[in-house]
Amino acid sequence: MIVIIRQNAKQEQVDKLREFLGKLGLTIHLSQGENSTIMGLVGDTTRVDPDLIASLDAVEDVRRIQEPYKNANRKFHPADTVVDCGGVKIGGGLFQIIAGPCSVENEEQIITVARAVKAAGATLLRGGAFKPRTSPYAFQGLHGEGLRLLKLARQETGMPIVTEIMDASHLPLFEDVDVIQVGARNMQNFELLKELGKLDKPILLKRGLANTIQELLMSAEYIMAGGNEKVILCERGIRTYETATRNTLDLSAVPVLHEKTHLPVIVDPSHATGVSRLVKPMALAAAACGADGLMIEVHNDPKHALCDGPQSLTPAEFADLTRRVKAVREII
Amino acid sequence: MIVIIRQNAKQEQVDKLREFLGKLGLTIHLSQGENSTIMGLVGDTTRVDPDLIASLDAVEDVRRIQEPYKNANRKFHPADTVVDCGGVKIGGGLFQIIAGPCSVENEEQIITVARAVKAAGATLLRGGAFKPRTSPYAFQGLHGEGLRLLKLARQETGMPIVTEIMDASHLPLFEDVDVIQVGARNMQNFELLKELGKLDKPILLKRGLANTIQELLMSAEYIMAGGNEKVILCERGIRTYETATRNTLDLSAVPVLHEKTHLPVIVDPSHATGVSRLVKPMALAAAACGADGLMIEVHNDPKHALCDGPQSLTPAEFADLTRRVKAVREII
Amino acid sequence: MIVIIRQNAKQEQVDKLREFLGKLGLTIHLSQGENSTIMGLVGDTTRVDPDLIASLDAVEDVRRIQEPYKNANRKFHPADTVVDCGGVKIGGGLFQIIAGPCSVENEEQIITVARAVKAAGATLLRGGAFKPRTSPYAFQGLHGEGLRLLKLARQETGMPIVTEIMDASHLPLFEDVDVIQVGARNMQNFELLKELGKLDKPILLKRGLANTIQELLMSAEYIMAGGNEKVILCERGIRTYETATRNTLDLSAVPVLHEKTHLPVIVDPSHATGVSRLVKPMALAAAACGADGLMIEVHNDPKHALCDGPQSLTPAEFADLTRRVKAVREII
Amino acid sequence: MIVIIRQNAKQEQVDKLREFLGKLGLTIHLSQGENSTIMGLVGDTTRVDPDLIASLDAVEDVRRIQEPYKNANRKFHPADTVVDCGGVKIGGGLFQIIAGPCSVENEEQIITVARAVKAAGATLLRGGAFKPRTSPYAFQGLHGEGLRLLKLARQETGMPIVTEIMDASHLPLFEDVDVIQVGARNMQNFELLKELGKLDKPILLKRGLANTIQELLMSAEYIMAGGNEKVILCERGIRTYETATRNTLDLSAVPVLHEKTHLPVIVDPSHATGVSRLVKPMALAAAACGADGLMIEVHNDPKHALCDGPQSLTPAEFADLTRRVKAVREII
Repeated sequence: MIVIIRQNAKQEQVDKLREFLGKLGLTIHLSQGENSTIMGLVGDTTRVDPDLIASLDAVEDVRRIQEPYKNANRKFHPADTVVDCGGVKIGGGLFQIIAGPCSVENEEQIITVARAVKAAGATLLRGGAFKPRTSPYAFQGLHGEGLRLLKLARQETGMPIVTEIMDASHLPLFEDVDVIQVGARNMQNFELLKELGKLDKPILLKRGLANTIQELLMSAEYIMAGGNEKVILCERGIRTYETATRNTLDLSAVPVLHEKTHLPVIVDPSHATGVSRLVKPMALAAAACGADGLMIEVHNDPKHALCDGPQSLTPAEFADLTRRVKAVREII
Repeated sequence: MIVIIRQNAKQEQVDKLREFLGKLGLTIHLSQGENSTIMGLVGDTTRVDPDLIASLDAVEDVRRIQEPYKNANRKFHPADTVVDCGGVKIGGGLFQIIAGPCSVENEEQIITVARAVKAAGATLLRGGAFKPRTSPYAFQGLHGEGLRLLKLARQETGMPIVTEIMDASHLPLFEDVDVIQVGARNMQNFELLKELGKLDKPILLKRGLANTIQELLMSAEYIMAGGNEKVILCERGIRTYETATRNTLDLSAVPVLHEKTHLPVIVDPSHATGVSRLVKPMALAAAACGADGLMIEVHNDPKHALCDGPQSLTPAEFADLTRRVKAVREII
Repeated sequence: MIVIIRQNAKQEQVDKLREFLGKLGLTIHLSQGENSTIMGLVGDTTRVDPDLIASLDAVEDVRRIQEPYKNANRKFHPADTVVDCGGVKIGGGLFQIIAGPCSVENEEQIITVARAVKAAGATLLRGGAFKPRTSPYAFQGLHGEGLRLLKLARQETGMPIVTEIMDASHLPLFEDVDVIQVGARNMQNFELLKELGKLDKPILLKRGLANTIQELLMSAEYIMAGGNEKVILCERGIRTYETATRNTLDLSAVPVLHEKTHLPVIVDPSHATGVSRLVKPMALAAAACGADGLMIEVHNDPKHALCDGPQSLTPAEFADLTRRVKAVREII
Repeated sequence: MIVIIRQNAKQEQVDKLREFLGKLGLTIHLSQGENSTIMGLVGDTTRVDPDLIASLDAVEDVRRIQEPYKNANRKFHPADTVVDCGGVKIGGGLFQIIAGPCSVENEEQIITVARAVKAAGATLLRGGAFKPRTSPYAFQGLHGEGLRLLKLARQETGMPIVTEIMDASHLPLFEDVDVIQVGARNMQNFELLKELGKLDKPILLKRGLANTIQELLMSAEYIMAGGNEKVILCERGIRTYETATRNTLDLSAVPVLHEKTHLPVIVDPSHATGVSRLVKPMALAAAACGADGLMIEVHNDPKHALCDGPQSLTPAEFADLTRRVKAVREII
């Protein structure tokens, strides 16, 4: 950590600062320049609050050198983490495709889709039972009944299930779920993260709409600090000024995350783009830049359903996608 | 709501769409052009999901004309809402200043600050007991003990108290709190919003870091749809590419919100800028553009405290600020 | 184009508006609803200024339905445009790799790099002679001498050359250049675009740092409206709040642009990421989502040069990249 | 400047780096930690290219401590700069209001508006003769004729004139203009900035749509490095994800710029918001946070003109605004 001292700081203030930093167990290296003085802090700064130091009168700026996360940091854990999701392993070269409908609607729908995506190459089944919706008037999911139907589909197909939790109070309902998903809007719901840290179950943590890669890692750190190291990260698009797509899929996050952390990183092109026509090209791109998996929305036979998610693929489109994704995987 | 039909849509698809829209109780006006056909939907579209319609093969795009919120909408409620916060009224021309420390630290601190801000013109006391922190290793607040100290400070000064909730399961602790604050990171914690909608207590709803003005209003709608109409909105800076300030304070949101909603709108310049030197100019600017109130961080005597929030004012700076803010208020 | 009438607009104002719109040769379809009235304008609205209409007292909002560009629009020109760049064709299934150093430094450097990238599969040579630099104190390029050396490298290798122009007054120097590049900062330098529209030469138009896909197409339209239809578009990253990469590469722009326009679309992963380690994964991703070409920075033998662009590849890394890119191309 | 050395850097690489940095005349302070080694560079780093250093294999990251601008830096020039604009002084406590129409349309319009804004308190006249327009089909201004009419209006009213330049080749036409404006899209048109640096004439430099405060100062530095110190900065809104206003007016930039530079800072609320109803509140807010001036669009009698800029005020609205702005100025 670097502390830049104000040009006009009083010696007394600087002494007080040194004393304070010394108490934190940090060694201080001073670089005195003509126009600025810099303190290099050496030691474990993970638990130092830079805002606290920046608030001192003598301080102009504080910059972190070390990352503020340890458990998620590849520096302290060089080997890839492989997460076992109900028997299906992801990370460390093991690539998995999670697929299923946006929401669980009824038994026939979820079973039909589950069979179709399994046949097409999916290895985990997704489906929303609790749906975060911007409008209080929109469909919010089947809740407990949705979870029951998901488990039924798991029984029918053998695929482990992934589904989203929205509040820690719902945890009892998720006991038998294979992978618990934390949605983008809850990435910094710290109370929820703390509860998930107490479990021994894979957590699929989606990047928030306006969260940095570092904040995503800090949220993973919340879960891991509690003892649960089974975290899978998911890039799903960030909010920018561009309106041609729902969000801007930040695929560079995949290789960046692979440098910074040992956790598996998957990509959700369906939510990122919001348009089914863009899902295939972006899924291929995600595979090409090294993602450890994909999460794809697939809907039931669209000929008989009037309305489906604008971002969902048909089973046939999905089958074509998985075939090409596998070919891309072989090249890289 | 406007539905734009694809150039190459089949008549059969368009007919199916008309039938579907008719069932929703909407009247359809068709504008046939050379290169595009447009359907104007007339009726109550608040509960129509535009994404659902956009997903149909025949549809190129869907645009909302009416706002998707009703309770918060000034069109349906032209008069300003005045919210009574433990006897202190805000909105409809009544301007209030909420002040206090970032976190409640101990009895002496909160009582000293409370007395100082009251003397300087604050009418509501703020103080954090549950602190959302990016890092799991940072101080997370005094929780129940913090709430106890806040209530003690209220007893000492007579000022109603405002404090942040982070999870619906903590609600029993907030029973005697005058105003419950929802922080930026929880603006779309829909489960929490639904619980707050069941209360008869003012909710201070902060705009999320990357949320639009419309999403802020939709989150207010969540609370109001539950029956709680006592919502105060708070602009506190949004995330942009600019790094000179912690966030970018979007003051235009104040007059925009005043057009769109009848709810009171306040501004928090402390969190937005993250730098105490910028709090005064931005507080004055907020008052000048019509905010109904301010939320300002003030810390204890900084001579004796080594570390305080870099964004906090001293009581003396705060007193100067309130004096000038009142003068600005008289002009507009 | 849709015009939404204010709830409280006077009949007189609405009549005046209808008269005005009629004079623009547009047919008006009126949809009268309870809470809003909507006018659908049918006809050629490309030349209608929506801001002008939005300024009228009676108007609440104006939304475009048709795109405001014609020459660049795939609707009016369904077949892919193939641009001939000094004998090398790009677009319509023809994929090309442009490579070379950030700046032309000297004869040895440019010739060495040119030979190396040709051997590794590049088909066009890039190199900067005029460099846009944020700081007036940074190296600004070799200017005319740089162009001379580029032409020398073309003579040596047979590869057509691509280089950036910064001001219309430099055009005489670019007469013998094969492809003129417009950099991100000049994407809306409209005077420059107009001059380039008068040429019969391929223009490589880079997306601005904060420009939408539609604005990129409008800038292409500037060039095409002048008569020059040889425009190649280039995605090179946009500015977001994320700081882990220099810019955020918006790869979704590739399939989106392919839907909206017939022009070729290439990707520059070097400038987008700013880090050489990220160039390969993002180049593969660009190829996987359908880009018509790549623009890659390659530097000279880094063992003998102390300093090189942090985003440049070595010739060996580049050769590995082209090999894999070709394999990815075969799958999609 | 701080250089962070990679954990696994070889001693040989580090030695080479020290040698290189030493040649640049910089003194190096080394802080060796367990997990990272940091070099503090002391000396004049204004002309050091951090990207160049970051590109070295041994380097993990480079962070600037000193600002990369000198002429514009308040550290080296503590007193406020006052710029004389044809007799009207701005900066250092002298507040000015620039007003006029978006575009010069004809003699009657510009003279009428000029008289009206002067009567209402404006001290400088603005009006566009060269208009940067996103669409090639939109009105581009009267060019030379527009400049002639502006000068006529100056003669009639005595007000100095401010107008935008779009290309250095037009400079001969601007010889008799009092203040030359550089628009947001040209903020990084470095060739234009260099030419303006050779003049002895005030330059009004608008912040680019997606440019940081530091980049704005670097563009000012371009002009000042050429010898022209008469630069006025203008905040006019930045591009964010929010669509309720055309751009997001970043008023915090005003006090931030006042800390970093001695140059005057004005605000243009008309272009930032794009809506006339928002101009007054944001103008008052700009005055309240310490702006040295305002730039406001005022149009002719709107009763007789069918169409005017949606962001323009009437002379009466403008007169009310100037009265209140003056009152706010007295408080701060």
